[in-house]
Amino acid sequence: MKQSSANLQLTAYVNDKFLPLEQAMVHIEDRGFQFADGVYEVVACFGGGYLDLDAHLQRLERSCAAIEIVLPKSLEALKDLVQQAYHKNPYEDAMVYIQVTRGVAPRSHVVNQAMQPTLVITVRDLPLPSDTKLRTGVKACTLKDIRWKHCEIKSIALLASVMGKQEASRREVDEAFWLDEKNHMLEGCATNVFAIIDGVLVTHALDHQILGGITRDMVISLAKDLGFVVQQRPWKLDEKGLTECLMSSTTNAVMPVCAVDGQAIGAGVPGEIGLKLRALMLEQFEELRHAKV
Amino acid sequence: MKQSSANLQLTAYVNDKFLPLEQAMVHIEDRGFQFADGVYEVVACFGGGYLDLDAHLQRLERSCAAIEIVLPKSLEALKDLVQQAYHKNPYEDAMVYIQVTRGVAPRSHVVNQAMQPTLVITVRDLPLPSDTKLRTGVKACTLKDIRWKHCEIKSIALLASVMGKQEASRREVDEAFWLDEKNHMLEGCATNVFAIIDGVLVTHALDHQILGGITRDMVISLAKDLGFVVQQRPWKLDEKGLTECLMSSTTNAVMPVCAVDGQAIGAGVPGEIGLKLRALMLEQFEELRHAKV
Repeated sequence: MKQSSANLQLTAYVNDKFLPLEQAMVHIEDRGFQFADGVYEVVACFGGGYLDLDAHLQRLERSCAAIEIVLPKSLEALKDLVQQAYHKNPYEDAMVYIQVTRGVAPRSHVVNQAMQPTLVITVRDLPLPSDTKLRTGVKACTLKDIRWKHCEIKSIALLASVMGKQEASRREVDEAFWLDEKNHMLEGCATNVFAIIDGVLVTHALDHQILGGITRDMVISLAKDLGFVVQQRPWKLDEKGLTECLMSSTTNAVMPVCAVDGQAIGAGVPGEIGLKLRALMLEQFEELRHAKV
Repeated sequence: MKQSSANLQLTAYVNDKFLPLEQAMVHIEDRGFQFADGVYEVVACFGGGYLDLDAHLQRLERSCAAIEIVLPKSLEALKDLVQQAYHKNPYEDAMVYIQVTRGVAPRSHVVNQAMQPTLVITVRDLPLPSDTKLRTGVKACTLKDIRWKHCEIKSIALLASVMGKQEASRREVDEAFWLDEKNHMLEGCATNVFAIIDGVLVTHALDHQILGGITRDMVISLAKDLGFVVQQRPWKLDEKGLTECLMSSTTNAVMPVCAVDGQAIGAGVPGEIGLKLRALMLEQFEELRHAKV
């Protein structure tokens, strides 16, 4: 059993050192701070069992490669650091946040190849949305996509998503979904989005407009296990036969969405298939507690 | 006379404190580091005379407003801090870099309104491109625009521009220019771009696809003073009558571009109008040395 989470001394990792979170600093000329020149991952851990840790670390490696940063540690060493970071913090259920930036250099767009990348790890409580939220129903709005053209890279250039979330907050909904120019659903600011259309699970195909979510993969795999057909294709909210809408992310698991832009989805309450997928996913989280990696 | 620039003890400003640059840090949960949730300005100073300092600070205020950050100081107080920062550093000709981020908070896209913004100022040497570079000629390449849809905001979400500059570097050219879907010229990774077409100065009109450069304004104003017609409209590199190409930025002033994508512009040497505009601008820089603001 870990120390009580009432004792909130948090520990972070910055460039080969563990230290109290409040002392965890980076230089003001870190390219992560001046150019959004970095990538990140968020990994869920339930009682010491990690959800798809290898998949997250592999994606971190791919994100680094996409922007030509050399990951400063081997995947094995990173895995060990994630586990150390988890154990140095008080939460049983935690989000482990990992960020890699190109490093520190006098400000210039041009990359100096001699730079040493910055590696940061933090650990925070993972409060999955409560059953109350689930019952009253998650709401979303849609926005025209204003983001850049490489959303497949999990970069820290997240200002567009921050602005989307601010707009969602102004509209008193939980998430904003990005639409392409033809009003096809892409993904949310921090979620992937699915629909149930004529009993088929539908979600946008992987391309440069969406992130290949690890939880998205899990939703697809669970749906297939249940015998559902899965289609990865462009889709719209007003498609005939659409009965449910779902969003997924590490911190949301899979979550039924009951209304979008003030319009009820289906009966306006969490749908049967979404609830089933969520229950299965939460079962997997429970199993992680008993089968630590 | 300032201290010799051989003595390279640099001083930075971070949240109400001046301190040695190497000790200038921000917290790893600063939203500038985790979300690119901030904006910036680069101001040139020649011997203590600032180039359009008020215009830069006003744009900083507009950028903050666009992403709903409250500038943590009045423009007067900021101006004073910029001057203090300049005087605490060894350079006669300097770039003063000012960055504002939303502040520090446990990582979440959603904005906690109680945050205190972070304000950072650094001062670096301003080496205007040498005459050699000017004679051999600046080269550029073009790339399809991959950036977000709010390039009018001078945000620190600059990863796309970093990638553009990396591509330029791979192609052994000095700058990459972004083209829209119809191959219209937008702007460079860190410059605005102009053409001389049939003796008219042409540049893309201000919209969400380009930054309203302070040096861009200066180029337009100088050209008008010289009696040139100025058109702000979509244009292409292969337009009939195009004889010169220019780029502008605080650190480049205005610079003739001699080749784009390996094709010579005009005679492949700096054009007459570009050189004239550059000479006039450098004269203004010289005047600043003698008429400090």
